[in-house]
Amino acid sequence: MKKIESIVLAADLAGTAVFALEGAIVAMRHGLDLLGVMVLSFVVALGGGVIRDLLIGATPPNAVRDWRYPVLAFVTGLLTFVFHDTARALPFMPIMTLDAAGLALFAVAGAQKALDYRIGPFIATLMGTVTGVGGGVVRDILLARVPMVLAADIYASAAFVGAVVLVAGRRFGLSPMLAALLGGGACFALRILAVMHGWQLPKATPW
Amino acid sequence: MKKIESIVLAADLAGTAVFALEGAIVAMRHGLDLLGVMVLSFVVALGGGVIRDLLIGATPPNAVRDWRYPVLAFVTGLLTFVFHDTARALPFMPIMTLDAAGLALFAVAGAQKALDYRIGPFIATLMGTVTGVGGGVVRDILLARVPMVLAADIYASAAFVGAVVLVAGRRFGLSPMLAALLGGGACFALRILAVMHGWQLPKATPW
Amino acid sequence: MKKIESIVLAADLAGTAVFALEGAIVAMRHGLDLLGVMVLSFVVALGGGVIRDLLIGATPPNAVRDWRYPVLAFVTGLLTFVFHDTARALPFMPIMTLDAAGLALFAVAGAQKALDYRIGPFIATLMGTVTGVGGGVVRDILLARVPMVLAADIYASAAFVGAVVLVAGRRFGLSPMLAALLGGGACFALRILAVMHGWQLPKATPW
Repeated sequence: MKKIESIVLAADLAGTAVFALEGAIVAMRHGLDLLGVMVLSFVVALGGGVIRDLLIGATPPNAVRDWRYPVLAFVTGLLTFVFHDTARALPFMPIMTLDAAGLALFAVAGAQKALDYRIGPFIATLMGTVTGVGGGVVRDILLARVPMVLAADIYASAAFVGAVVLVAGRRFGLSPMLAALLGGGACFALRILAVMHGWQLPKATPW
Repeated sequence: MKKIESIVLAADLAGTAVFALEGAIVAMRHGLDLLGVMVLSFVVALGGGVIRDLLIGATPPNAVRDWRYPVLAFVTGLLTFVFHDTARALPFMPIMTLDAAGLALFAVAGAQKALDYRIGPFIATLMGTVTGVGGGVVRDILLARVPMVLAADIYASAAFVGAVVLVAGRRFGLSPMLAALLGGGACFALRILAVMHGWQLPKATPW
Repeated sequence: MKKIESIVLAADLAGTAVFALEGAIVAMRHGLDLLGVMVLSFVVALGGGVIRDLLIGATPPNAVRDWRYPVLAFVTGLLTFVFHDTARALPFMPIMTLDAAGLALFAVAGAQKALDYRIGPFIATLMGTVTGVGGGVVRDILLARVPMVLAADIYASAAFVGAVVLVAGRRFGLSPMLAALLGGGACFALRILAVMHGWQLPKATPW
C-alpha cells in the first residue's frame, strides 16, 4: 500500500512539473517577466485542482495546504526561465505526449477526489475534466485570449472521457487503481490519436 | 406549500434553460466548437449562482450539488447546437423578454438565498445582482472581451433594483413570495423599459 | 490595545479607499459606465482579499461579511465618478505613493491573516502577495488585457518581499505590529525605489 501511494505521489508531482514547464514556455512566448513566468507555471500546473477543490468544498485547496506543489511549480518555472534556450528547443512530440499523460492523470485523480467528497457521479466527471483543463483555461484568461479548449482540439473531451471511464469503473466495482488505469489510458489514447489524426469536434456553420 | 415549491423549481429550471440557450448562441457566433458551446451554456446559466454560493459560503455550490441543473444546461446547449439554424432565426424581442424574466428570477432568488445564509441586507442585494449577471460576466471573460454589463445598458442595475426591492420587502415583513414578486416585477419592468427607450447609465466625459 | 485596533482599522479603510479611487479612474479611462466604475472600485479594492479568503477557507470573505468595506469602495467609486474632473487632474507621484502604501498594508495584513488561519509560512507569503495584487489582476481580466503585474514593474515582487519579511519576523518571535511595520516598510521602500529607478524584473530574450 505504501508503495502504491508513493507511485501516485510521484506521478502527481511529475504531472505538476510537466504542466508547470508548459506554463513557463507560454509565458515567455508572450513576453511576460520572471514573475509572470512563475505565476503561469503555478496557474497551469495547479489552477485546475484549485478550482475543483473550491467547487467541491475541499478548502483550503490542496495547492494551498501542501507547500510541495507550489514550490515544485515555482522551481520548474524558474529553471525553465534560466534555461530558456533549452526549453525553446524542446521538440513537440515528447512534450505533447507528456502533456497528454498529465491530462490523463489529472482527469482521473480529479474525478476520484470528487467521488471521495461524496459528489455525485455525473458532476464527478465534470470535476475530473475541470482538474485537467482548468489550469489551461486560467492561463488563457490571463493571456487575454479565448481559452483554446473551447474552440479547438480533442482535449477537454479526452479528459471528460477519461473521467467518465473512471467513474463508471468505480460504479461497476473496479478497484481505484484499475479504474484509474483504464480511465487514464482512455484519456491518453484519445488525446494522442486526436493529435495524430487532426480530429476536431464539430462546429456550427459560420453565423 | 408543495405547489409553491413546484412553481419555484419550474421557474428556476426555465430561467436556467433560457440563459443556457443564450450562452450557446453566443458561443456559436464566436466560432467555438461543440464543447465550447456546452461550456458557455453552463457558464451563462449557472455561473452567477456558483459565484454567489462560493461567496456566501454555500459550498459545494448548488450547480455542483444538484445534477439536474448542469444536465439541463448541457442538454439545452446540445439542442441549440443541433438545431442551430432554428436558434439563429429566433427573433430578438421574445428572447430579450425571456432573458429579462430570467434576470428578474435569478436576482430575487439570489438575494433571498443570501438572506437565508444570514448575509446582511446590503450584501444580499449585491449577491442577488451577482446571481443575475455573474454568468454573463464569466461568458465575456471567456470570450476575451470587456463584460458588457460594465459598459452599457440597464441590466445589472435592473437586477440590483430587483434585489433591493426583495430585501426591503422582507425587512418590512412581506412574505417571501410577495417580496419576490414585487422585486422580480421591478427588475423585469425596468429592464424592458430600458431596452424599449434605450436608457443608459451615465458615463464620465471622455478622458 | 483598543487604540492599536483602531489604527489598524483606519489604515485598512484608507488602503481600501485608495485602491477604490484607482479602480474608478481606470474604469472611466476605459469608457465604462457608472455601474462599471463602481464594480471596478469594488474589485480593485477588495478583490485580492476575497481571493485570499476563498483560498484559505475564510468564508464568507471579509468583504461579504462586513458591509463597511463594500460601502466604502462604492462610495469612493461614486465620488470619483461625480468629481471626475478633479480625479483626472490628480498628480502621479502622490497617487503612486499612496498606492505603494496600500500595497504594503494589504501584503502584510494578508500574510498575517493566512498565518492566523494556520496556513504554512511559505503559502502565507503567497497569500500576502495575492491580497496585494489580486484586485489589480481581476481589474485587468475585466478590461480584457494581460495583467500588468505579470509583464512589468516591481509590484507583485515588492508585495512578496513584504510578506516574506512579515512571516520571517513572526517566525523569529517579533510582535505582530513590529513584524508588520518591518514587512510593510520593506514592501513600500522597494516599490518606491523601483519606480524611481525604473527597475524591472528580467525577461527571457524574445522568442
